Order: sequence, then C-alpha cells, then structure tokens
Amino acid sequence: MQVLAIAGSLRAASINAAFCRAAVRLAAPGMSVSVHRSLGALPLFNPDLEADPPREVRELRAAVARADALLLASPEYAHGISGVMKNALDWLVSDEAFVGKPVALINTSPRARHAHAALLEVLRTMSATLVMPASISLPLLGSCTSEAQMLATPAIREQIRAALICLQALVGSGAAAGASFPVEPR
Amino acid sequence: MQVLAIAGSLRAASINAAFCRAAVRLAAPGMSVSVHRSLGALPLFNPDLEADPPREVRELRAAVARADALLLASPEYAHGISGVMKNALDWLVSDEAFVGKPVALINTSPRARHAHAALLEVLRTMSATLVMPASISLPLLGSCTSEAQMLATPAIREQIRAALICLQALVGSGAAAGASFPVEPR
Repeated sequence: MQVLAIAGSLRAASINAAFCRAAVRLAAPGMSVSVHRSLGALPLFNPDLEADPPREVRELRAAVARADALLLASPEYAHGISGVMKNALDWLVSDEAFVGKPVALINTSPRARHAHAALLEVLRTMSATLVMPASISLPLLGSCTSEAQMLATPAIREQIRAALICLQALVGSGAAAGASFPVEPR
Repeated sequence: MQVLAIAGSLRAASINAAFCRAAVRLAAPGMSVSVHRSLGALPLFNPDLEADPPREVRELRAAVARADALLLASPEYAHGISGVMKNALDWLVSDEAFVGKPVALINTSPRARHAHAALLEVLRTMSATLVMPASISLPLLGSCTSEAQMLATPAIREQIRAALICLQALVGSGAAAGASFPVEPR
C-alpha cells in the first residue's frame, strides 16, 4: 500500500513536514509512505491553464494517482487553510484521480480548529473519501515539533503508528470506499 | 480617497476581476479605485522569507499601505477560499499596515457561501476593519459576467455604485474604525 504524505507549509522547520517525515519512519508493515516534495514548486492555480497544466501540476496529479491513500497535514494561518495547501487542492479539484481517494487529515495543532474544519469541508466537496478514524489530532505544541522528537515521544509515536495501521486496515479492506465507510458525525 | 481592488482569481475572464474593473469606472466623486495587478506574481507563502520578503510581496504590502480601503472579490473553489486569495492574505498577516484597514468584501457568487464566510473569519482574525454595509452580494450568475455587462445592467451598476458610496462615507467619517463601526450580526 502506497501512501503519499503532503505538508501544507513551506517553512523549513514546519511541524507538518516533520510529521510527514515521521510517518515515513512509522509506516505499518506492507505500507510505504513517501513525502511529496514541496508544494512550493506549484504555480498559483489558474483555471485557464487546466487544458495544458504546468509540469509541477502534472507531477502532483501523477503522484496522487499512484497513491492508495493520502496523508495531509497543514497549518492554520489566520483561522484559515494555508494558501499553500489550498492552492495544491485547487489544482486537484478537476483531477479524476482525486475522486474517492482515501484521505487521512492530520491536525498537528489541536488548538487550531478553523482550518481543520474548512479542510474537511473542501475535501468532502472534492469527493475525497475521508478516513476519519485515521484523521487524528496530535498534541504537538510545545517541545515536540521535530521528526526526532515525535519519534522519541512514545505517546505521539504510538498515535501516529495507530493512525497509519487504521488507514491501512480501512483502505485495504475497502471499508474506506462507499456507503459503509465511517464518516464523522455532522 | 484611494481604494485598492483585489481579485482572487487568475482566470482571464474572471467575474471577480471584471467586478474590480467595473468598480474603477463606478468610483464615487473624490474616490479613486485602482486594481492591484495579478496576485499570480506572488510566490507561495513561506514564513522563512518574512525577514526579507520577495519584491512582489513588498509591492503588495506597499499598495495596501497606500490604500485607504480595500475592495476584495474572490471566487469559491470547492467550498473554500481560492488558494490565490488566501496566499496573498497569508503574506499580509504579519503586515502592520493591514491592521485596522477598512475592507469591503464583495461576493460575486451569492450561491457560494462557504468561501465568503471563511474570508470574513480570516479577515476578522487579521484585524481588518470589515465594512459590512459595503460588503454586498452581487447576483452576477448568468449573463452578467463581464465589466461591460455589469456597467450596462442598471440594477448591478447601481448596487456597485451604492457600495462604493457607502464605503467612502463610512471610511471618510471614521465610522469604519473602532467600536462604533457597524459589524455583521453574529
């Protein structure tokens, strides 16, 4: 099972990027997690370019198509989704490979609720299959902000591992597709 | 009074860009509306670059600082703020000139409610002064999607004109600043 992890921040010391790298290390047996290279290479979304998308867009779409599931982790800026993450999603709105794609949305800032809720709404609108049991909030504020610290903190490490096992089990069983899939309470 | 109009879409035939150009033509006496050149020239937001922002970011911030008020018009993509608009706002979060800046937020797609509400939340979080009486919804769906059509349609033309007069009166009187400012019902 191939999982593509995507961080919504370009900051070198990004907690979300660190989480993605930690997930690579904590992949369940039979699962491979790769981190998408920076979303910073994407151009800003322009519907006029859809007919002949720029190379970076085609590469993102190909990576999404190859993945059995996506792992998204994104910061909140001013109570909103980061422009970096939303720009990437805007390029994927018209992408058929995204429809039904299992997505686990990780919130690395539990005190930030607006962007997470907005992302769930956007992903739902894009017809992603939200894998809610694997979409966890990680209490990473404070000192646990690097990949090494996440791996060295048992409570965090085990939460990430559990989310990945859960993602694998649900996607692997097909329970993440269709009406039987457990969705969040509305 | 200087108003800076900013569209959140890069599409050549963008309704929001057309609205901005129509606003230039419909400026109230004593008011000058200019359209910010495309947000497409901005790099994707990276907090690491804040210490020495790219030229396009400095130009946007300077244009915001010069303006007495902003006129924002942005599309909704997948029930969310366009990445293009959010990316520009992400660059303005740390900009002192943005704090207290009077902003009229125009919704050119009244059937789209998510992005408009999300933008209000983001602008509030950024400490903009939301000028709600001038923040109108324009029923532009259908045939009225170009600058010429907006100017030629009396009901639309007069709604835009009224919003601009209202913006001028509130900002000019100082009523758009501080506690006396009429805010939206919560």
